[in-house]
Amino acid sequence: MARPIVSLLTDFGLRDPSAAICRAVVLGICPDAEVLDLAHDVRKFAIGEGALSLWAALPYVPVGVHVAVVDPGVGTARRPVALRVARGDVLIGPDNGLLMPAADRLGGITEARELANEAYRLPIVTATFHGRDVFAPAAGHMARGVPFASLGPTLDPASLVPSPLPVPRPVDGGLATEIVYVDTFGNVKLSALLVDVRATLGEPVGRRFRVTLGDGREHLVPWSPTFGERRAGEPLLYEDSYGRACIGVNQGNGAEALGLTGGMAVTIRPEGAPAERVDGLAPGSV
Amino acid sequence: MARPIVSLLTDFGLRDPSAAICRAVVLGICPDAEVLDLAHDVRKFAIGEGALSLWAALPYVPVGVHVAVVDPGVGTARRPVALRVARGDVLIGPDNGLLMPAADRLGGITEARELANEAYRLPIVTATFHGRDVFAPAAGHMARGVPFASLGPTLDPASLVPSPLPVPRPVDGGLATEIVYVDTFGNVKLSALLVDVRATLGEPVGRRFRVTLGDGREHLVPWSPTFGERRAGEPLLYEDSYGRACIGVNQGNGAEALGLTGGMAVTIRPEGAPAERVDGLAPGSV
Amino acid sequence: MARPIVSLLTDFGLRDPSAAICRAVVLGICPDAEVLDLAHDVRKFAIGEGALSLWAALPYVPVGVHVAVVDPGVGTARRPVALRVARGDVLIGPDNGLLMPAADRLGGITEARELANEAYRLPIVTATFHGRDVFAPAAGHMARGVPFASLGPTLDPASLVPSPLPVPRPVDGGLATEIVYVDTFGNVKLSALLVDVRATLGEPVGRRFRVTLGDGREHLVPWSPTFGERRAGEPLLYEDSYGRACIGVNQGNGAEALGLTGGMAVTIRPEGAPAERVDGLAPGSV
Repeated sequence: MARPIVSLLTDFGLRDPSAAICRAVVLGICPDAEVLDLAHDVRKFAIGEGALSLWAALPYVPVGVHVAVVDPGVGTARRPVALRVARGDVLIGPDNGLLMPAADRLGGITEARELANEAYRLPIVTATFHGRDVFAPAAGHMARGVPFASLGPTLDPASLVPSPLPVPRPVDGGLATEIVYVDTFGNVKLSALLVDVRATLGEPVGRRFRVTLGDGREHLVPWSPTFGERRAGEPLLYEDSYGRACIGVNQGNGAEALGLTGGMAVTIRPEGAPAERVDGLAPGSV
Repeated sequence: MARPIVSLLTDFGLRDPSAAICRAVVLGICPDAEVLDLAHDVRKFAIGEGALSLWAALPYVPVGVHVAVVDPGVGTARRPVALRVARGDVLIGPDNGLLMPAADRLGGITEARELANEAYRLPIVTATFHGRDVFAPAAGHMARGVPFASLGPTLDPASLVPSPLPVPRPVDGGLATEIVYVDTFGNVKLSALLVDVRATLGEPVGRRFRVTLGDGREHLVPWSPTFGERRAGEPLLYEDSYGRACIGVNQGNGAEALGLTGGMAVTIRPEGAPAERVDGLAPGSV
Repeated sequence: MARPIVSLLTDFGLRDPSAAICRAVVLGICPDAEVLDLAHDVRKFAIGEGALSLWAALPYVPVGVHVAVVDPGVGTARRPVALRVARGDVLIGPDNGLLMPAADRLGGITEARELANEAYRLPIVTATFHGRDVFAPAAGHMARGVPFASLGPTLDPASLVPSPLPVPRPVDGGLATEIVYVDTFGNVKLSALLVDVRATLGEPVGRRFRVTLGDGREHLVPWSPTFGERRAGEPLLYEDSYGRACIGVNQGNGAEALGLTGGMAVTIRPEGAPAERVDGLAPGSV
């Protein structure tokens, strides 16, 4: 029989023992659990980045209990919640939008509960470490087989804080999106998926696009199925391995080379579409 | 039946494979072990910071065998030791004080042994990697059920190197303590616990204190039960989730904002108490 | 019965969830696996550094399936491979030399296969994440007991890309080697093992050597069995805990103190041997 899966994603970092303490609390309650650390170096307080990592990872993680803690509101009135989703998983964390993209990707929320039952918390709940005191214990008890309904009162899913990820939208001949993540290779992930690009701009592969940044800079960039089709140092638009529209540079750090950072607005237009200005850059140049 | 718990805490970092090798050595000897990495990014050679992390973590870790290696003296005459504590755990590491605060917190040492038995080391013991050659093998054998007494000769606990954490002490109307750790959020942990503050200064919550640093700078800082009660950017004294007196800044990095680093002396006095000088700062200002 | 061991080594970093996704894919296929993360902070695209870490770690890891991914050629024609070695392990990764030093150290390759069988990949294989789509699934199936021969067609081991680690060679009275890794303590690892030094220069312990760097700088450095025999800040040549020739500085960061970085050529000559120039440095000085 497979061990119950519990995954953990936090912004606690790896120098402090906080993430390991959460793992230990789960194991103390459910010694059989297979505890899987998804990431603990999420940028501090970056709810959107944590939400994106969870969205990316969970489809590859076996059905289980998944704890996520990026929680600038710890100690305030924000609710601790558990979400049951259509795939069968339980997602546990703060009600700040962090869990929502992943919940949606796993089929949507079928039931939501507030973590109100003191029997499934540590005896003392501090004001600053709900990962240890509230979320990890709830996960351990879920993994041990406690019924979902016993966690606390139901919540109207419509009352939950929505996803922090901005929705891409069509805009005068283009698609307006935003940088939501820069990965450790310097690849730049947009809020738009390939399906969003296709719906607004048609099939992009093999075409060139004008990429306009929030600060007015503009680049002509080809959409390429692989990095290897570009010259070294050349930028490209591409679909990453999760179906997301991204900007990269072959054999380089795209974010550094192009001066891109999280939160920056990005509008993608076909090469021939009208725009405020075009820098007249050679194809593929920065 | 629960798998035997073995935890690991080191300053080996996560880029080199050293920490994983220790984990592998444990699993090679005791394939059933549940090996729990507490932290491997302890600041290099910072025995006090490792000791504090171990003190913080172990009460939340199930009873087991706990290896800690922050060991600037590897290859010298410092003794490799195993400490049995009242809770039932075995702590393994160098005799340099690293294990002492955690041993104390788990009820105190009931028996100490020197890791002298060559049967519980790797066949070759190098001069530079006792984590792999001495400490991890001893932990694996303990987890497998080898009797504690077989590790080597008993040691007088009084002969062990004491805790590296400075003891807070009352001083002319205040409490003299020291910064022992700056966490990854920039929160500043003192050697004093809340109980030490209470014993010397009375109940601190809701009062303001003059915080004098070793370099003469002085701040008027309120003691607040939660960050959320302060304005953004405002400093506070508070009890962290382990019962320790700390200095932080609401929605900010306390260490950076206040110029605080590990090892710095800190004296806490009631607002009205006499001191060498007062900067006349507004309440809560820096 | 012991759980099957699967180890993972990548340059994916720990902020992104990529490494955890590989772990999750293995567990999804083989829930019983004991998945051991060797290192995920290998320097990006540094095939030689990944190869060295794998070479260092695997002798201490129980026999199992070992996945390594440092793969600048992902999405190109480079082959995905599995290597069976004499010790009984299976090594899985890209055919770019990454696996070769470890394969050699575990007794040499007894059989090589190309990972061509689509039954042992994820349903969709993307152009950029073969760790998740190709290598981890193959490892999961191996751990579950799938026959090695079913992975794909045999490969001639002689057709594999060779080790990226440079071979040390005798040169006019000395040994020419290269810096292959700087560890997190700042210790500098050479491509030469102690056995290479002995073969060319005789027993080194207790003697002094002229160390000539690729940029012409030269140091007189003693070969010392332990750091503790040198003064604080003094450089030394020594054998590390894996049998490798290294340069370090007692109680210091050798790479920073001596200005050493990966890829730098290093020639080691006996103190009295002729050389192009000698800086006349005092023994042990930098």
